[in-house]
Amino acid sequence: MTRDLTITEVRLTPILVADPPLLNTQGVHQPYTPRLIVEVVTADGTTGLGETYGDTKYLELARPLAERLPGRSVMDVNSLFGLDLAVDESRVAGAVDAGGLRGVQSADKLRLSVLSAFEVACLDAQGRALGLPVHALLGGKVRDAVEYSAYLFYKLASDADDWGAALDPAGVVAQARRFKERYGFGSFKLKGGVFPPDEEIAAVRALAEAFPGHPLRLDPNGAWSVETSLKVAEELGDVLEYLEDPTLGTPAMAEVSAGTEVPLATNMCVTTFGEIKEAFTKDAVQVVLSDHHYWGGLRNTRQLAAICAAFGVGVSMHSNTHLGISLAAMTHVASTVPGLHHACDSHYPWQSEDVLTERLTFTGGRVTVPDAPGLGVELDREELDRLHRRWAEDDGGMRDRDDAAAMRAADPGWRTPVMPRW
Amino acid sequence: MTRDLTITEVRLTPILVADPPLLNTQGVHQPYTPRLIVEVVTADGTTGLGETYGDTKYLELARPLAERLPGRSVMDVNSLFGLDLAVDESRVAGAVDAGGLRGVQSADKLRLSVLSAFEVACLDAQGRALGLPVHALLGGKVRDAVEYSAYLFYKLASDADDWGAALDPAGVVAQARRFKERYGFGSFKLKGGVFPPDEEIAAVRALAEAFPGHPLRLDPNGAWSVETSLKVAEELGDVLEYLEDPTLGTPAMAEVSAGTEVPLATNMCVTTFGEIKEAFTKDAVQVVLSDHHYWGGLRNTRQLAAICAAFGVGVSMHSNTHLGISLAAMTHVASTVPGLHHACDSHYPWQSEDVLTERLTFTGGRVTVPDAPGLGVELDREELDRLHRRWAEDDGGMRDRDDAAAMRAADPGWRTPVMPRW
Ligand SMILES: [Mg+2]
Ligand SMILES: [Mg+2]
Repeated sequence: MTRDLTITEVRLTPILVADPPLLNTQGVHQPYTPRLIVEVVTADGTTGLGETYGDTKYLELARPLAERLPGRSVMDVNSLFGLDLAVDESRVAGAVDAGGLRGVQSADKLRLSVLSAFEVACLDAQGRALGLPVHALLGGKVRDAVEYSAYLFYKLASDADDWGAALDPAGVVAQARRFKERYGFGSFKLKGGVFPPDEEIAAVRALAEAFPGHPLRLDPNGAWSVETSLKVAEELGDVLEYLEDPTLGTPAMAEVSAGTEVPLATNMCVTTFGEIKEAFTKDAVQVVLSDHHYWGGLRNTRQLAAICAAFGVGVSMHSNTHLGISLAAMTHVASTVPGLHHACDSHYPWQSEDVLTERLTFTGGRVTVPDAPGLGVELDREELDRLHRRWAEDDGGMRDRDDAAAMRAADPGWRTPVMPRW
Repeated sequence: MTRDLTITEVRLTPILVADPPLLNTQGVHQPYTPRLIVEVVTADGTTGLGETYGDTKYLELARPLAERLPGRSVMDVNSLFGLDLAVDESRVAGAVDAGGLRGVQSADKLRLSVLSAFEVACLDAQGRALGLPVHALLGGKVRDAVEYSAYLFYKLASDADDWGAALDPAGVVAQARRFKERYGFGSFKLKGGVFPPDEEIAAVRALAEAFPGHPLRLDPNGAWSVETSLKVAEELGDVLEYLEDPTLGTPAMAEVSAGTEVPLATNMCVTTFGEIKEAFTKDAVQVVLSDHHYWGGLRNTRQLAAICAAFGVGVSMHSNTHLGISLAAMTHVASTVPGLHHACDSHYPWQSEDVLTERLTFTGGRVTVPDAPGLGVELDREELDRLHRRWAEDDGGMRDRDDAAAMRAADPGWRTPVMPRW
């Protein structure tokens, strides 16, 4: 190998991608969501792709980082994490990250979310240059396909999609049926925290009746008190694979955990390495929903999985609105983790737009692990340009995800709820 | 990259290497120690090197493993660990592994110790084939040299070496002085558990006086009761960087830990991923001495380091009698771990023989991280053959390390001590 893997150029392209009006406890998805596409170009002409959040605060951090990469090797990913990237603290002030619904914000999370896209882009470039799939760079796949779950949402009707509204048990079941028919998903996750718990319990019950034996999950993003959480766990204990972030914060999660046999999963109270110790020693969660964007890339995700394995904690995968670059990255890393006992979440079926020449597909609820060099996906530059122009021309305030603003547009009386909401 | 990295052949070469009569609480090193050299050959003619324990029980496991490798890719290291390798349980019966002084034996430890040599050999082959140093395959070095500590031993005199005896404080200080002069080591570790604690306290005190400000460590391999451990910690608290395995087992270590401010290190009570949870939740140890042989290779060592980082536990590196292949492997992985705050142990200076064309060297107590492809070391096949012939012709019972047997040869009245010894 005499190829020169020195980085010569880094391209950052913020884009806006269509997003359906999916409801969560903080509001509803805006018509467009910002994403950032990272391209790392090496001296030998290889280009690696990465993707992460595209809100202004991520861009502000990505730009100075991008300037520091030329001259470094794409092999040098460990030292990326040692770069001192100053985070504007005002960007992480405030309690919960409404957009990401990922727990308390911190400079560390912001930094890692930006670094993750560069790490993935470096791995993609490594793989392309060396002729190896990313999974091989991570020690090789231990499965040929990765299972995903259907990600069900309460949803408003919209002219921009043909899914219609889903605002009650029947609507949720209809959505699930369509997911199963189209993609073959065998597990269902319902994003909750939208309606009073009894209505969401009824929706999960309806799913259990319609799809007997299928693993079910409910995720209210911390909208409930400990008492409500325990009540829901009691009522749905016989059908839930796990209950996801019923309440906010490790101490409250530990209380719920101590009072129920239903496993608790989280992508809110354990989202950084620094949050693991308290949660694991308190047995607050039984499943961590990893997310390579949060955790700083694919190699950190593997390290998280190793920590979980050592502590007997399960691993599954969280997802936010994302495109095919990230789905490919998720699939590669998931294929290398031995103890992945739960289907991973993915918003991807909700995304009608992508920046790839060819979309990834779900068959039997699974994505086949790409064996082509790198991530195994190709950038559609025209589409990237089109979605970037949308971002550049945006004057509707959609460069920063704001679920509450979208909710106020639909319901002028909407106020961001105080947690616990129920 | 169109090179064919399919494994076509695996060569296992057990050898006996000269070892000085170093004392520990279980006895003394025999004149020769068994090691196993693993060569993994790929279709394109690349050969990767690995090294591990060479006792019969390791060979018995390495042979069937070697037979299963041809046809696999050297990139596929994750799935190596999923192979079901049956361990003869009679091989792991009995309490403490006398040879390794590495805590209670288990099938898991035996399996991982064998796998580690294959993992390292695969990484070496990957690096050679791809033109990349092993550290680059691990995400890149974050330092250019790795610091090691001087590994001091109480020692019998021997015609086979010119170190002479070291059986009292003056002898230990003289040995330390020679180590410092020859290799520039700045930290000193004394293998204890040999003489009554007061004598070893006096030796450490003498080191502190002779080398003020140098980090010191004492490792009696679990020879002491909790009470004795606390007494030693109290007496040496002002000069010890850490106290290593003063007593056996996590509960006893946790008791000692609760009673002293001196950090406790271990390569005996935390030697597998399964032992981490109890030790970390009980705050039984503050430093884990990783050993890629124990833990199943370089990638697992990085995962261990990540777990330690998440729990605020320090990392350093354990060493047993080993040759240059393993020192190179240790140096590569250590160069990639950000939070390596202690100098690593290495027996290497005690090994007068090696199977490399060129020995690795310590300068200023450091080994420069090799940047050549793979591990950056070359096999001396003639020397390998010579040391293998020694193994093949051995009729002195040295194919299995037995420190007690060697001790009985020196002192016919020797009985393996019951722990705690003091
Ligand atoms: Mg969630
Ligand atoms: Mg030790």
